[in-house]
Parts: sequence; structure tokens; C-alpha cells
Amino acid sequence: MSAIAPTPEPPYYAVIFSSFLQNADPGYEIMSRHMSELAALQDGYLGQESVRDGLGITISYWRDEESILRWKEHTEHRLARKLGRSDWYRLFKVRICRVERDYGFGEEH
Amino acid sequence: MSAIAPTPEPPYYAVIFSSFLQNADPGYEIMSRHMSELAALQDGYLGQESVRDGLGITISYWRDEESILRWKEHTEHRLARKLGRSDWYRLFKVRICRVERDYGFGEEH
Repeated sequence: MSAIAPTPEPPYYAVIFSSFLQNADPGYEIMSRHMSELAALQDGYLGQESVRDGLGITISYWRDEESILRWKEHTEHRLARKLGRSDWYRLFKVRICRVERDYGFGEEH
Repeated sequence: MSAIAPTPEPPYYAVIFSSFLQNADPGYEIMSRHMSELAALQDGYLGQESVRDGLGITISYWRDEESILRWKEHTEHRLARKLGRSDWYRLFKVRICRVERDYGFGEEH
């Protein structure tokens, strides 16, 4: 996941997920990876960027709000979010954003 | 900077800055910290979240697009961005977003 997501021309959507974990839990890593893979299969998914160093920031990019809502309602994702609240996260914040413009610099742009 | 930014009710704006550095440069850390402190003094600044582990993600939150544009035109910030392109970053992408809704979980919410 250590790459800058190759998103299309705006507008598109971003879901910023900022979090702190509770305790280390091997189940978390497995589920987290599975959710990333599953998200990537959803219609409207555009890419993801993710970093953690104490604070974790994961940003997933989507074509439109409908895609975000469908992914939110996905059965496996609902279960993972439930476990997230009960077992894994100490706190988190989710922000749903419309990307209005973007620009880049460097080899990938 | 390791905290979730206590932003107000949406709508507000987010600038997502995703980057990879070139080589280690002590000047980068100094300038990066100075820019964070200077940004926090600007009118319309709401907060910041920042993590790096290879990929770096820094998100600054702003009241409106005017605040973002004023900060972009700030003389010291322009100089820092010039050094960023010439000396510090291997690649980066900037995304300007309108935060439409948000929700949280845990002690700070």
C-alpha cells in the first residue's frame, strides 16, 4: 500500500480514516489487509494510501458517493467495522470528502 | 502532530499531501516543522494530521478555499515549496477536498 494512488481527474471522492489502535492484535492485521483487498474489488474504487506510525491514516478514493455508501453497506465490511469498534480502535475519525482539484510532482506524474 | 485534528462540523476543507522524500536531509525536518507551525498561525487553519513511514501523508484542514489559497501564496511557504521540488521530494501529490460529512468513535468524540 506504500504508493501514491494513481487517481483520475477530479472530481472524485476520498474517505479519510484517521485512527489509533488499542492493543496489538494479530487479527487486526489480517482483517485490515483483507478489507483493503476487498475494497479494491468494489465498483467505483479508485485506490488507497495508508500509513501508520502511532496515528494511522488510510485514505481510500472512490468515483462517487454511491460507491462509498455501497462499500459501507457491504456485509463483511460491516462486520469488520463492528470488530473495529469493539476490539481494535481506541479512537477514529472518518471524513468523507469531494476532491475538487489535485496536482502532482515527480516521476509518477 | 500525532493526534486526530479536532475539526468543527462540516463543511470544511482538507488538503491531502502524499509524498515520498529523496534523501535524508536535516534541513527538511527543520523546514517541515517550521511550516507546520506557520500554517497553524494562518487565518482559517483548523488542524493537521501527519504520518510518515516511507509514504508520508499530511492532511491540513481549513475553513474555506480562500484560506488555502492565501496559505499557498504565503512567501515563506512558496520558498519552502520551491525547495521541496528541488531538494526534498521525489514525488508528491496534493489533493484539495471539501469535507462533506464526518463521524468519529472513541474518547475524543
